[in-house]
Amino acid sequence: MTEIHTLPEMEGPVCPLPLPHNEQIVMGHGSGGLMTRDLINKVFAPFLSNPVLDAGNDFGLLPPSQISNPRLVVSTDSHIVTPLFFPGGDIGRLSVCGTVNDISMSGAAPAGLTAGFILEEGLAIQVLQKVVASMQVAAKEAGVFIAAGDTKVVNKGQGDGIYINTAGFGWLPGSRSIHGANAQPGDAVIISGSMGDHGIAVLSARGELGFSTSLESDVAPLNGLIAQVLAAVPEIHALRDPTRGGLATTLNEIAGQSQVSIWLDESAIPVKSVVRNACEILGFDPLYVANEGKVIVILPAQYAEKALEIMRNHKYGREAAIIGKIEKDEPGAVLLRTSYGSTRILDMLAGEMLPRIC
Amino acid sequence: MTEIHTLPEMEGPVCPLPLPHNEQIVMGHGSGGLMTRDLINKVFAPFLSNPVLDAGNDFGLLPPSQISNPRLVVSTDSHIVTPLFFPGGDIGRLSVCGTVNDISMSGAAPAGLTAGFILEEGLAIQVLQKVVASMQVAAKEAGVFIAAGDTKVVNKGQGDGIYINTAGFGWLPGSRSIHGANAQPGDAVIISGSMGDHGIAVLSARGELGFSTSLESDVAPLNGLIAQVLAAVPEIHALRDPTRGGLATTLNEIAGQSQVSIWLDESAIPVKSVVRNACEILGFDPLYVANEGKVIVILPAQYAEKALEIMRNHKYGREAAIIGKIEKDEPGAVLLRTSYGSTRILDMLAGEMLPRIC
Repeated sequence: MTEIHTLPEMEGPVCPLPLPHNEQIVMGHGSGGLMTRDLINKVFAPFLSNPVLDAGNDFGLLPPSQISNPRLVVSTDSHIVTPLFFPGGDIGRLSVCGTVNDISMSGAAPAGLTAGFILEEGLAIQVLQKVVASMQVAAKEAGVFIAAGDTKVVNKGQGDGIYINTAGFGWLPGSRSIHGANAQPGDAVIISGSMGDHGIAVLSARGELGFSTSLESDVAPLNGLIAQVLAAVPEIHALRDPTRGGLATTLNEIAGQSQVSIWLDESAIPVKSVVRNACEILGFDPLYVANEGKVIVILPAQYAEKALEIMRNHKYGREAAIIGKIEKDEPGAVLLRTSYGSTRILDMLAGEMLPRIC
Repeated sequence: MTEIHTLPEMEGPVCPLPLPHNEQIVMGHGSGGLMTRDLINKVFAPFLSNPVLDAGNDFGLLPPSQISNPRLVVSTDSHIVTPLFFPGGDIGRLSVCGTVNDISMSGAAPAGLTAGFILEEGLAIQVLQKVVASMQVAAKEAGVFIAAGDTKVVNKGQGDGIYINTAGFGWLPGSRSIHGANAQPGDAVIISGSMGDHGIAVLSARGELGFSTSLESDVAPLNGLIAQVLAAVPEIHALRDPTRGGLATTLNEIAGQSQVSIWLDESAIPVKSVVRNACEILGFDPLYVANEGKVIVILPAQYAEKALEIMRNHKYGREAAIIGKIEKDEPGAVLLRTSYGSTRILDMLAGEMLPRIC
């Protein structure tokens, strides 16, 4: 399989390939036999084909890393979002970007992914094709490929259309040390853009807002943006994407790991007005709503302006802002100076706000 | 977290740890916030703790490989077996062994795994603990560790207790070339033991046999056995574990990839009498029933006896047998010389025989 099909039009229901004989997923597609092979050949291979995958083994043998003294970084995420398609993205794009981003948060260059599909009996194969096509587009954008895959089928009523697990691997240069326990007093905290877009866009797609918006999920691969920042500034202490639990929960993790306090300036945190309005109606705090294309950058204050400039020149960082700083008082706490001048403690998310969001 | 708890008694319902406050999985356990952290601390960390995982990042940074010129091998499998516990194993052991084995089939030494859990709301946390404890035992046996994890929760009725995806990574020495397209005319075909044990044991656990047996699944990590064979013989051409689709389907894949024919001697293929009897009653062919602890070894005929000796001295290869050979006639075909002296073509599995088997 040498030809890679592209899907120029992702919005419409039109599929560029002839549909397989079976219009729906049946249990036999998970048999490991002829029907599984048929599904691979007709739905997966046209979009995800590459020499590693096409070798047809139960493993993928990777080409060597091109960097010197590379260290291996791995990550995994299962994706269970509902609905499968939402403004700005779908479960396919999410499954690629989510894991690419987790790898990128180490400072590593993501190299490839594995993909495990759990399909529900009765799923329209056209839906699966559209999701796999979206994975191809996202993988191409991120510069990664699918090195190994697996498909299982569960009985109708024991899944929800498509669940996708991706695991990722990437190569970290020998000298780089970026992790959650590395935030240091004096550091600046930058966020790459507005908070809460993904969560509210998915909620909107479920019809739970009660009004329609033009809001789109921010789901995007961040490795390109991060590579540019890494190239421009000599030192970054921590990177993390504020997904489930939002900015507040993610910063609490870092504050705990690094045993520092994180002070935020509420007025500096970008939140779109449509997200703010939706959150007010629903009783949510946008700082706890999931993002899928934003990164928190924690670095020495003297490099903050340079990093900000680089980020704002990248399409996924146009609204980047310095939102706070690291202090040594009150280790483990995240504190918000509100627009009214008061200070409020931001705890981790308790309970569940938005299930099935990613 | 430095202490690793062990679970000496895997059969009984007794759990060595105090139960978490919530006795069942609720949606909040997938929130990414406090309840997720609670679940990690109380259920996952006690069994799976290690320095890479305990660093608490969204990625795992691996120690360097100890071999020279290592090449990275990756694999993935989602596990959806029902019931979760069956004679000889459970979904936890299966999820570790399945991916350890896929990595091992390249000739690589498995180093570690990622684990993604999709939990159904309402799952008893005691059940999850037992599964995670079993993963610990299997990982310890295989000499691998969990380098990254993820937990999602789906609403009741959109899952089936526990689905587990594992992805694996391992290191392949620079000179080794073992893959499905490498079977060569003149090679011998060895199987490490009896066929169909896993599939029939799971079916038995579902109460679908209509009689009780003492049969156990063969689910086991094969990296130790394979390492011994690799050390003893200078050349192996192909390794593959006959999981879904069984021996017949797996050999068809290899025959197709290598463009050779594979001739089998039916009387040489080990099948336990209980499996043979169950298959006769159910109308199954044991050569199409899934195994989870068996490996097909294809290697130059002159090394076959040596490999067989090594395998028979290993606890997972006691019943190893030379079952056939590779020929150049009829490329892509698998042919069985039956006990009656006739020849029968073994095709790939068509349709689905045993859903939710792995």
